Amino acid sequence: MNDSWLNKVNWTQDGLVPAIAQESGSGRVLMVAWMNREALGKTAQTGEAHYWSRSRRKLWHKGEESGHVQKVKSIRLDCDEDVILLEIEQLGGIACHTGRHSCFFKRLEGAKWVEVDPVLKDPDAIYHK
Amino acid sequence: MNDSWLNKVNWTQDGLVPAIAQESGSGRVLMVAWMNREALGKTAQTGEAHYWSRSRRKLWHKGEESGHVQKVKSIRLDCDEDVILLEIEQLGGIACHTGRHSCFFKRLEGAKWVEVDPVLKDPDAIYHK
Repeated sequence: MNDSWLNKVNWTQDGLVPAIAQESGSGRVLMVAWMNREALGKTAQTGEAHYWSRSRRKLWHKGEESGHVQKVKSIRLDCDEDVILLEIEQLGGIACHTGRHSCFFKRLEGAKWVEVDPVLKDPDAIYHK
Repeated sequence: MNDSWLNKVNWTQDGLVPAIAQESGSGRVLMVAWMNREALGKTAQTGEAHYWSRSRRKLWHKGEESGHVQKVKSIRLDCDEDVILLEIEQLGGIACHTGRHSCFFKRLEGAKWVEVDPVLKDPDAIYHK
């Protein structure tokens, strides 16, 4: 398989690149996570978002536990070639591990961060702890 | 001034946080850049996006040379508190130093990155080199 396109990415010293997942249609930015070469390759190959979990130090097929898979419609790269932008369809409508639609649920109001988006599903019910 | 909200951010070891600039209305993701504490503080205080230029190692008031200032409508923080999302109005309609609307102008098609968005203005005309 021709994967020379992966060489075009400016990987960090740790071999990673940040990836933004943006919801198709709504345009909502749902999350940002990291990818290594394998994760980006699998994302392109399978059409489902794969990331590198820095905390667990392993490849992470988004939704593997929760079912909240991200179907990838397009993959973009920025001018500096060091950030990936995914256009995705978010299965289950929940991207955040807190059970919210988007990870960006805190908004600055005056000098305070306020949680402005609701929890759609209890994380315990999502992850079957 | 009360800036304890800045302590809530999970700064990197270098004292930085990545910030996504998303256009209000269109929802287009225009760019990603880094902020230090001063840049985020000034962004909130002035209502115009400020970043930390890693290459020039200085505070960067976006648009200071080009006039392509970003008016900030909201500032969000993600669940891990390590990514900022700005909702902005892009003056001049150009965020990218290449003269394009968005920095994310390369799209993966098959095994190739293809430039899919037009240059709106010659960078030489933007920066008066």
